[in-house]
Amino acid sequence: MAEDKALTPRSENFSAWYNELVQRSELAGYTPVRGCMVIRPHGYAIWELMQSALDGMFKATGHQNAYFPLFIPESYLEKEAEHVEGFAPETAVVTIGGGKELEERLIVRPTSEAIIWPIMADWIESYRDLPLLINQWANVVRWEMRTRPFLRTLEFLWQEGHTAHATAEEAEAEALLILDIYRKFMEEWMAMPPVVGVKAEWDKFAGALRTYALEALMQDNWALQAGTTHNLGQNFAKAFNVKYQTEAGEHEYIWSTSWGVSTRLLGGLVMTHSDDQGLILPPKLAPLQAVIVPIYKSDGQKTDVLEASNRLKSKLEGTLRVKLDDRDTVSPGAKYYEWEGKGVPFRIEIGPKDLEKQQVTVVRRVTMDGEQRKFPLAENEVLTRLPELLDQMQRDLYETTLRRRDENSYRGISDYDEFKRIVSTTGGFIYTGYCGTEECETRVQEDTKATIRLIPDEAFRSENVPATCICGGKAQHEVVWARAY
Amino acid sequence: MAEDKALTPRSENFSAWYNELVQRSELAGYTPVRGCMVIRPHGYAIWELMQSALDGMFKATGHQNAYFPLFIPESYLEKEAEHVEGFAPETAVVTIGGGKELEERLIVRPTSEAIIWPIMADWIESYRDLPLLINQWANVVRWEMRTRPFLRTLEFLWQEGHTAHATAEEAEAEALLILDIYRKFMEEWMAMPPVVGVKAEWDKFAGALRTYALEALMQDNWALQAGTTHNLGQNFAKAFNVKYQTEAGEHEYIWSTSWGVSTRLLGGLVMTHSDDQGLILPPKLAPLQAVIVPIYKSDGQKTDVLEASNRLKSKLEGTLRVKLDDRDTVSPGAKYYEWEGKGVPFRIEIGPKDLEKQQVTVVRRVTMDGEQRKFPLAENEVLTRLPELLDQMQRDLYETTLRRRDENSYRGISDYDEFKRIVSTTGGFIYTGYCGTEECETRVQEDTKATIRLIPDEAFRSENVPATCICGGKAQHEVVWARAY
Repeated sequence: MAEDKALTPRSENFSAWYNELVQRSELAGYTPVRGCMVIRPHGYAIWELMQSALDGMFKATGHQNAYFPLFIPESYLEKEAEHVEGFAPETAVVTIGGGKELEERLIVRPTSEAIIWPIMADWIESYRDLPLLINQWANVVRWEMRTRPFLRTLEFLWQEGHTAHATAEEAEAEALLILDIYRKFMEEWMAMPPVVGVKAEWDKFAGALRTYALEALMQDNWALQAGTTHNLGQNFAKAFNVKYQTEAGEHEYIWSTSWGVSTRLLGGLVMTHSDDQGLILPPKLAPLQAVIVPIYKSDGQKTDVLEASNRLKSKLEGTLRVKLDDRDTVSPGAKYYEWEGKGVPFRIEIGPKDLEKQQVTVVRRVTMDGEQRKFPLAENEVLTRLPELLDQMQRDLYETTLRRRDENSYRGISDYDEFKRIVSTTGGFIYTGYCGTEECETRVQEDTKATIRLIPDEAFRSENVPATCICGGKAQHEVVWARAY
Repeated sequence: MAEDKALTPRSENFSAWYNELVQRSELAGYTPVRGCMVIRPHGYAIWELMQSALDGMFKATGHQNAYFPLFIPESYLEKEAEHVEGFAPETAVVTIGGGKELEERLIVRPTSEAIIWPIMADWIESYRDLPLLINQWANVVRWEMRTRPFLRTLEFLWQEGHTAHATAEEAEAEALLILDIYRKFMEEWMAMPPVVGVKAEWDKFAGALRTYALEALMQDNWALQAGTTHNLGQNFAKAFNVKYQTEAGEHEYIWSTSWGVSTRLLGGLVMTHSDDQGLILPPKLAPLQAVIVPIYKSDGQKTDVLEASNRLKSKLEGTLRVKLDDRDTVSPGAKYYEWEGKGVPFRIEIGPKDLEKQQVTVVRRVTMDGEQRKFPLAENEVLTRLPELLDQMQRDLYETTLRRRDENSYRGISDYDEFKRIVSTTGGFIYTGYCGTEECETRVQEDTKATIRLIPDEAFRSENVPATCICGGKAQHEVVWARAY
């Protein structure tokens, strides 16, 4: 927080605001490696909270973690035709090892299907070994040309699940189970309710039978693809000869899935909640939930205030993530500015007047309708009230985001002029009928820069289809359009 | 555990025993990428317990996690002369990205000093920003020619700490603080008490002022370097121009350290405790601490036994890591074999006779002097006794290993014939005087394959120096020799 100048306001330039905020709040920074960021301790602490919540959900549903090689021999990447076509152009390639030209080039994994399946094939003998439910926390590399911290980087951190099943139905159920885990995580932890659904045919994962996705709406009314799960059918099983023996003794190909979310979620978190003062974090993902700032003028005051501050800190530790900022070299005002910018949900000020009244002064990072930003709290109430206030802020952020998403969702749009007007003015999620051709989407994209985000889940499973496509042709199903990151 | 044939006994071929055990107990496996292993769920679960313990110790001493790029531009690796000389020959090099030859080649990090310091230089302005205490959990790649699972692999997982300090004394204190954390972790969690000390001049980390190391003695009396901490002095600060402003307003180079332990620890854990039946795990690092195996013949028995087993599992959950193995397709005997091989500390059998007597039958994975392997425990005592039994096994494993290390440490050896006899018969840690020349070590190594592991910490800080070197010359200090992995 070295620079004191204000952030560019969101309303003026959302993109500049985002880039400045990510650096100013010390979430991430640029590096000498093109397109690669450094995730700084504050950003990484948020990622650790995300990891811990997701990892718990995966384990509770029977998944186990493992770790597979960073490198994929080129010939393995080439075994699934669609997969290599989708990923090969954007890979980093190791051609030299130990000072010598390699006989076979190694691809730095852009995703791990092509190395995981040849390895896991050996772990599966019979139906007794299924389902095989594996997850990996890892770094991957995709050679992106235009990068932005968290949203699109050459290297990123993610988790990638890879599972094997005995039947098509079980693989489909797994893809939907994880889709639901992702949705819950985004709603309950990130306070970022997404729209869920199915990707259009040409937009699915390279090698998948079907791709499910979660799309969240950012404050600028652009969409962010926040996670995907893939039903891979038997494509990878056939490419890598992954078979199991059925109870009847037959040898069959397994059915597989893969699914992932990445550090991109951190970008989504920022663009969903933060404001022109800096970061706003849902309490469940705030590395610090409250910071205590002691205020004093004389040495006598200092002793008493610091004693009370330390007492309060000890009392709160174990119930919430709290820090006492007792730095001598920084003024209280500078501390307020720093911790607000970093998104700490509550500041607790303790000064001589608070001591007299046996109270503390609580300041909210963000206020909703009718809430007081700054208010006193009796010292003996802090331990019970603060967790309630944190829960309330978590709920409030969710409600606010959900309301904003709904207010910016336009349903049943069939007139193309209206469609274009929405995209070019407010933006948001636009629901229309769709004829199913790639040409139609290409034309709309050329006109408006909006793309089809997904076929919403409820539409995918419904018989009710809008009459006409946005292009005027006959609709096959409903889709959601938006401009997207 | 698909193969039923016994492991090669340790006494016959320790190396074959290790390789077989690592695969049979499903810790790791081979992959199509030369020198790269897959860490399977059982191995990875142990690594997660190790990570969690170490991460807690790092955070308790003020360290924060961050994440830096996988790639190092070649020109950055070259900035510290000794560092590049040490690491460049064993790197993997990316020369192609996004289908194009790169203008500057990218090195896959073998360790991160050369990318961390140019980045962290921007985080440091004044003495107020110091100490800067950063850790990273990451994968690194070193192009090793002869690899073995965990012990030496092309890619491995580790943590690497990187810290900046205002003074030489503080950097030295940090290197020693972490050395002590590593020692505690190895003693209290791994039950693998190491010898700690200083590396000889020519054996230190490339670019370090001084390297501290921890050496553990395996069951075959070979040494394993289990962790290192480095006082880097101002070498990297000067190479990357990392300066801070002192309180007096001067600009000075910072003093830095780095330190790491890796998945190599898993290899050490195996070679320290396991036996010819398979894995033995200290309870604190056992992903499963007890497994309940129901035993029944009739359907009537099955209902009662499974009910009691489920009740016991619910009772134990939350106190210890327990699993009920209620698979129908596997016999009790096969379950015993599988879980013993995987190192579960306690098996709890519940059969009809146990039900009658309101007891369970407990079976230890490993017994110490005078202990019963299999014994009954009253059902209402299980919850209090099992945690005690786990603690006791943890202590017993530590005591056993410490005793073995001491029994195989030969102190005050000055006769070279005796030295050679020890190396070629029992092996172990051999303490001798040492003249300080590289030539002497080279000759001993050529004769015996033993190398200087370190100058033991107590010797490094003592004025008491043995009179003569093992070569007959005048000794400068005491050292520890061993054949080493």
